[in-house]
Amino acid sequence: MNAVKPLRLAIVGLGTVGLGVIRLLRENHALIARRAGRPIEVVAISARDRSRDRGIDLTPYEWVDDMGSLAMRDDIDAIVELIGGADGPALTLARQALAQRKPFVTANKAMIAHHGLALAREAEAVDVALKYEAAVAGGVPVIKGVREGLAANRIERVYGILNGTCNFILSTMENEGRDFDDVLKDAQAKGFAEADPSFDIDGIDAGHKLSILASLCFGTEIDFGSVDITGIRHVIAADIREAEALGYCIRLIGLAECDEEGQNIGLFQRVHPTLIPLDHPLAHVDGALNAVVAEGNFVGRLFFQGAGAGAGPTASAVVADIIDVARDEYGPAFAMPAEWLQRQVKADAGQRVGRSYLRLRVKDRPGVLAEITAAMRDAGVSIESLIQRGPDGVEGVLIAIVTHATEQARIDDSFLRLAGSDSLIDTPMVMHILD
Amino acid sequence: MNAVKPLRLAIVGLGTVGLGVIRLLRENHALIARRAGRPIEVVAISARDRSRDRGIDLTPYEWVDDMGSLAMRDDIDAIVELIGGADGPALTLARQALAQRKPFVTANKAMIAHHGLALAREAEAVDVALKYEAAVAGGVPVIKGVREGLAANRIERVYGILNGTCNFILSTMENEGRDFDDVLKDAQAKGFAEADPSFDIDGIDAGHKLSILASLCFGTEIDFGSVDITGIRHVIAADIREAEALGYCIRLIGLAECDEEGQNIGLFQRVHPTLIPLDHPLAHVDGALNAVVAEGNFVGRLFFQGAGAGAGPTASAVVADIIDVARDEYGPAFAMPAEWLQRQVKADAGQRVGRSYLRLRVKDRPGVLAEITAAMRDAGVSIESLIQRGPDGVEGVLIAIVTHATEQARIDDSFLRLAGSDSLIDTPMVMHILD
Repeated sequence: MNAVKPLRLAIVGLGTVGLGVIRLLRENHALIARRAGRPIEVVAISARDRSRDRGIDLTPYEWVDDMGSLAMRDDIDAIVELIGGADGPALTLARQALAQRKPFVTANKAMIAHHGLALAREAEAVDVALKYEAAVAGGVPVIKGVREGLAANRIERVYGILNGTCNFILSTMENEGRDFDDVLKDAQAKGFAEADPSFDIDGIDAGHKLSILASLCFGTEIDFGSVDITGIRHVIAADIREAEALGYCIRLIGLAECDEEGQNIGLFQRVHPTLIPLDHPLAHVDGALNAVVAEGNFVGRLFFQGAGAGAGPTASAVVADIIDVARDEYGPAFAMPAEWLQRQVKADAGQRVGRSYLRLRVKDRPGVLAEITAAMRDAGVSIESLIQRGPDGVEGVLIAIVTHATEQARIDDSFLRLAGSDSLIDTPMVMHILD
Repeated sequence: MNAVKPLRLAIVGLGTVGLGVIRLLRENHALIARRAGRPIEVVAISARDRSRDRGIDLTPYEWVDDMGSLAMRDDIDAIVELIGGADGPALTLARQALAQRKPFVTANKAMIAHHGLALAREAEAVDVALKYEAAVAGGVPVIKGVREGLAANRIERVYGILNGTCNFILSTMENEGRDFDDVLKDAQAKGFAEADPSFDIDGIDAGHKLSILASLCFGTEIDFGSVDITGIRHVIAADIREAEALGYCIRLIGLAECDEEGQNIGLFQRVHPTLIPLDHPLAHVDGALNAVVAEGNFVGRLFFQGAGAGAGPTASAVVADIIDVARDEYGPAFAMPAEWLQRQVKADAGQRVGRSYLRLRVKDRPGVLAEITAAMRDAGVSIESLIQRGPDGVEGVLIAIVTHATEQARIDDSFLRLAGSDSLIDTPMVMHILD
């Protein structure tokens, strides 16, 4: 092994993940050298604030203030970007690295979701690696699983729990019967949610990850802009109780489907709170775990689960990518050359047929149920089950409905027919049922 | 894509899996070409019996009787072996292929478990791919997951449900309250178990797979010979009932641990019916599914699940390997050069500390419980819980014991003290509890 050239890295960004990568490369150094076929060495580091005490000895590494200079150096073989953010310094660094033919490893889902296609083209033009395993599902090697493990399959559907913060909040609401705001505050106090949590709880982060998975699974150009996103802000404790009574739990699910056979469905991508049957493997994914299900036409349903965030798991994925670079085992970023990726139209969500859960909070007065069921009848929505419960910690009366399989557009229509009705206390909520 | 050279295959062995591979390459041909970067073509096929009607048109492929000649041909780039069997024609073919510098893809767990190390050396000597994703957990890309996805981690433990036949039998016993022999006959009638089922139900097949996983996870030489194997023949319906009452289900688990830090534990590999806590992800793995858990020092616990057998899933794994060969993305068969794999001594199972479930069937007469508990006291085994049930479809009286954490050797000792006692109706059964 001594005769072999080490892979020399620059690590840019020294937050939780950056420090995790340094710790991991240090602690598992000998083992990684055996697996990578050569030693992996950190040569230089860079971050915004040099003075901050990061609780780890960084003196073995050269500190570089001008991160742009790293791409120009002959003593650096690859650049690891752990700054975050879709644009700004991360994107500048990516472009500089690829322009200088440096392999580029990142955990940056926002950047890949927005600029992954352009970066993939730049990486292919100079034949270097662009790797982003840590961008989706943290430590779970699902990028590799889909890109390589399922490469033989037409993938019919991919879906999963892609945001640990949301899953922590929903499963805590479920286990403790508490309401959203209350659990969110608690999660923030414990560091499981950011001070500004909207990126997570409004589903943007899950949307980024879903758009990346969809591209890999379907051979389509990444299209984050066409992901329909609804977060978990409006899920209430009563929803979780009703879902449970019906045999479901509620999870924030990112789901994508694509028609490759010319049925003209297009690319469907949706992040939405979803009812999961209790006997589905995703129903057992609790706390901050992530899980992904991919359904292939030969392999059937594959299920991957593990820690979706945190320094250790994310570092594990980043270093797996680095080892692939050291082994020289890499290929096009999105499994096939970027020019072969297909641009797909956005599927019409209104055409999708499925069962849904509807929840309405209404005033406790005569005729309300007749008004609601009439609107549904007129919209052509057929009701499978309906529960009306009297006031019980919920303002007004709660009506929970499970529909028969129907086009999504009909449900939207039924809500439109009710819009403005003063029987409603707030906007009705729809959640889809995973079948 | 037209300008690129196709990867030309010979497929040897045309049973369920071989035909599955042909069907898959045909049905997903265009998609696979995009993902592999070039078309994949079957040039020649070979099997023992040419005359058999296999229900699929094989006339597009050249039939070759002398499979050894395939390795010599310039118009064949890689050989896919789907014959099976540890030795014999499969092994001969592997050696011929590698000697002629042909990449070799196989689904043959028995051959890899017995000869994988030697074959890896031969493949490395000529720098060609030796791939065997389908050998473990069928369609689940766990070889890739462990070899590459977890490459950054010291893997502390790997375990899982590695045999679909056993899992089908155990989960059917559980769901239907039936006994082993009865369910086995049923499984044989339905084609879920072989006419001679011993390879599966006695745990040999799971042992092969475990030894392969252990080598990849720990960087040790494959050592199938040191796997302790107990199958599921002696699990009775009453065990499953008692386990359930205690909060567990019973699965045939292959589990391996290795000490890399010089604590001198050695390599521990065991296939054994095991009690799984009902809140563990493995407890939800039913029917013929396979699942693997790998625990890394940075990533934590990763969980992979999917179809462990069958034409489609196995073909999916075989073709994933073929695509890696087409992409030229491969490396040493066991993640690192064979010469770097460490030879590990077999760990002393008697030293392992853990809780166990013991089941004894005894005669219904005074003093028996005193005799048993005295033997356990004398052996130093401490009892956490004990249930004695009167005759209920079981001959004699059934005693189910859960021990406190104790060395396995003490339990063996307690059984030795009871050996020959005419209070026992049959040999006591021990199952370990996964903690």
